[in-house]
Amino acid sequence: MILTDLYAPRAERMKASEIRELLKLLDKPGMISFAGGIPDPALFPAREFRHATRRALDGDAAQSSLQYAASEGLPALRGWIAEHMRSLGVPAAAENILITSGSQQALDYIGKLFIGAGDAVALGFPTYLGALGAFNAYEPRYVRLDPAGNRPAERMREEAKGAAIKLAYVTPDFANPTGETLSKAARLALLAQAAEVGAAIIEDAAYQALRFEGENIPPILALEAAQSGTLETCRTLYCGSFSKTLAPGLRIGWVCAAKSVIDKLVLLKQAGDLHAATLNQAIVAEVADAVFDTHVPRLRAAYGARLNAMLGALERYMPEGVRWTTPEGGMFVWLTLPGEFDATGLLGRALEHDVAFVPGAAFFPDGSGRNTLRLNFSKPDEEMIEVGIRRLAGLVGEGPRQSQQS
Amino acid sequence: MILTDLYAPRAERMKASEIRELLKLLDKPGMISFAGGIPDPALFPAREFRHATRRALDGDAAQSSLQYAASEGLPALRGWIAEHMRSLGVPAAAENILITSGSQQALDYIGKLFIGAGDAVALGFPTYLGALGAFNAYEPRYVRLDPAGNRPAERMREEAKGAAIKLAYVTPDFANPTGETLSKAARLALLAQAAEVGAAIIEDAAYQALRFEGENIPPILALEAAQSGTLETCRTLYCGSFSKTLAPGLRIGWVCAAKSVIDKLVLLKQAGDLHAATLNQAIVAEVADAVFDTHVPRLRAAYGARLNAMLGALERYMPEGVRWTTPEGGMFVWLTLPGEFDATGLLGRALEHDVAFVPGAAFFPDGSGRNTLRLNFSKPDEEMIEVGIRRLAGLVGEGPRQSQQS
Repeated sequence: MILTDLYAPRAERMKASEIRELLKLLDKPGMISFAGGIPDPALFPAREFRHATRRALDGDAAQSSLQYAASEGLPALRGWIAEHMRSLGVPAAAENILITSGSQQALDYIGKLFIGAGDAVALGFPTYLGALGAFNAYEPRYVRLDPAGNRPAERMREEAKGAAIKLAYVTPDFANPTGETLSKAARLALLAQAAEVGAAIIEDAAYQALRFEGENIPPILALEAAQSGTLETCRTLYCGSFSKTLAPGLRIGWVCAAKSVIDKLVLLKQAGDLHAATLNQAIVAEVADAVFDTHVPRLRAAYGARLNAMLGALERYMPEGVRWTTPEGGMFVWLTLPGEFDATGLLGRALEHDVAFVPGAAFFPDGSGRNTLRLNFSKPDEEMIEVGIRRLAGLVGEGPRQSQQS
Repeated sequence: MILTDLYAPRAERMKASEIRELLKLLDKPGMISFAGGIPDPALFPAREFRHATRRALDGDAAQSSLQYAASEGLPALRGWIAEHMRSLGVPAAAENILITSGSQQALDYIGKLFIGAGDAVALGFPTYLGALGAFNAYEPRYVRLDPAGNRPAERMREEAKGAAIKLAYVTPDFANPTGETLSKAARLALLAQAAEVGAAIIEDAAYQALRFEGENIPPILALEAAQSGTLETCRTLYCGSFSKTLAPGLRIGWVCAAKSVIDKLVLLKQAGDLHAATLNQAIVAEVADAVFDTHVPRLRAAYGARLNAMLGALERYMPEGVRWTTPEGGMFVWLTLPGEFDATGLLGRALEHDVAFVPGAAFFPDGSGRNTLRLNFSKPDEEMIEVGIRRLAGLVGEGPRQSQQS
C-alpha cells in the first residue's frame, strides 16, 4: 500500500520550506545566525508568564483553564484585543475578534474560506513564505501586487487570466522579508486598488507593534473603517499576533474583521481544531493586560539598538554596489547584491565562516531574486551583528565566484 | 462590499453545529445535561499540571517553553507517545508521530492531504460530527461504511458513483455517538474491505484508553502492522488525543502513521499553524510521563461507575420498546426510541424539565436517525444520572406527542 497515490492534487504544492530545513543546521556552536525570524527568548516576559500561569491553574481556576472552550476564544482575551484594536483606530468589539493558533492559522483559515481552486491571490514579490505555504493548499494562481498600490489593476487582471482575484495579501508594517513599511498614501492606494479588482485584503500585522522610530501609521483596516464608518462593510481582514510582542510558543494570534466573516471563520476554527488552547488564552490575556504596554517599549529599545548596529555595520563594511533597506521596525533588513551574485552560493561560503542568512529567492513565488538575501537582527546581539556583518561583507567583497553557485 | 460573495464554494458546506449551538444553552443552573461530550473537570490531574508548568517555566526553561518549536513536535512528547503506541502493539518510533492541536486537527489535516473535491469518504451512519465538519471543507461525497466490515465493498463503490474512495473513517473504541466497539474480527474485516476499495483508514482513537471492562482489543493499526511487518506500508492513520485522558484545554493530540505520511503531514502543520504550542507539549509530556499510568485507571473507575448508574437507571425506568447500547467504556450511551418518536421534539420537552441530550439525527450525514439520541455519562455524577434518566424516561412514557415535533 503506497498512500502517496491517494493524496489529493493539492498535496503536490505542499513542499518543504527551504528556510526551515536550513534552520535545522544552525544549532552549531559559534554560528552567527541572521537566518531566523524569531524573537530573542532572553527578552520574553517570563516572570509575568509564571505568575499568570500560576493563577490560571490555581484551585478551581484549573478546571476551566484545562477544559474545552468556545471556538471563537475566551471573552477576556477577545475583549483585550478589541480594546487594543480600538487603540489603533479600528472600531472593533469582541465579536469582531477570532482567536487563532497563531496568525499563521489565520492565513490558513482565510485561504480556506476564500480561495477556490484556480482563484487568484495578489501579493508582493518577495512575500512572506508562510503565506505562500498557507495559501498553496487551496491551489490559487498568484498575481503580482505592488503593495504600494502603484501597479495598474489592469495588469493584475491580465495576469489572473480571467480568474477572480479573491485576496490581496500584504504586510504593511516592517514586512517579512524586506523590512519595508507602506505609507498612509500607499495604504489608501492599495484600498482603492483592491476595490477596483474586487478583492478582500489580508493585512498581516505580525510586526505592527515593533516600530522603533518614525510616526505610527494607521492600519489599513482603520483607514477603511474611517471611510466606511463601520467594520461590517470592510474588505480588510486584519491578522494580529502575540508571537513578536509576548512569546510565540503559546501560538496565540487573532483575526479582526467584519462580524459576518468572523462568524464564518469561527465555524472553520470549530471544524479545524475546535479552539485555541484554553490555558494559553487565559495566560496571554493576563500577561497582555499586565505588561503589554510596558514590555513592548522594552522590546522596541532592544531590537532598535540591534537594527542600528546592523545598519551601522552594513554602512561600514559592505562594498560599493550593495543596497539594503532601512526599516523603522520589525526584525529584518533586506540586502540586494550586484546582479551577478547568487545569494545561495554566498550562503555556502558564509556557513564555512559561521555566518548564516536566508537567500532571498525563497520569498519570490516565481523564483526570481537570486541576488537578494534577508538578514534578521532580533536574535543576535549587537556584538555578534558587528562581527557577522563584517565577515559577510568580506565574503561579498571577494566577488560572486560562479564556481560556488552550482 | 459584501465579502460573502467572495467565499470559495467549500464555504457552503461549513455550517454551524447544532450540538454546539445547543450546548450554549446549558449553563442554566439545575440543568442535568447528558448533552456534552466533555470530561469531568473535577477529575483533571490539576496538581500535576501545576507542577509540570512550574518546571516548564522555571528559569532558563522558560526561554525554550515560550519559543517557536519544530513543526513535528517536541522530541520528549513524540518519544513518550511512540512508547505508548508500542504498548498498544504498534511498532512506532518518534518519527512516526506528528503532534497536532488536538485530534480534531489530525482529522482536518488528513482530510486536506487526501480528499480532492468529489472524492469519496466512507464512514458509519451515525458518525462523529466533528469528522464531518473537518472533511466537509474538502468537499467529499460520503458513502456508507459498516464499521464492522460487513457491508459489501461493491455497495460502497456503487454509492461512490465512480469517485475514488480515499478514506474510511472509523472510531473502533467506544464510538461517539454510539458507544460501540469493534471486535478484533470486525477490525480485520474492515482492513480487508479498505484494501478492496483502495482506501486509507482513519482510526479515531479518542476514547481508546477509556475501557472500563472487557478485554483490550488491539488498534487497527497494530493488527495491520502485524500483518505487514512494518508501519511503513500500513494504510491506517491512527489519531490519538490527550483530551479524554489528561485534559482537553491544552489541545494536544497526535497522528501515528507511516513516516512518509507523517513527513507530508508535517508540511501541512507547518503551513497550517507552524506547530502545536511549545509550552503545552512540554507540560503534557511531563504529566503523561508522571501520571498517565495511574491517572487513567482513576478515570476508568469514576466513569465506569457513572456508566453503570446510567445503564441501571435506563433498565429501571425506560418503558418497553426503547433500546440502548451497553458500552464497555468511553463517554456515551446511544438510545433508540420507537420509530414514531422524534428526538428533537422530545428534547424540547426535556429542556422544560431541566434535562438535556443530543438528538441523534445530527450524527447522520443523510439526516436520518430521527428517533435516536445520545446520552453522555462522563460529566454528570451518579445522582444526577439517576434523577435525569428517571425524568427522561417519564417523558418518553408520555408518548411521541406529535404536536411537539414541529
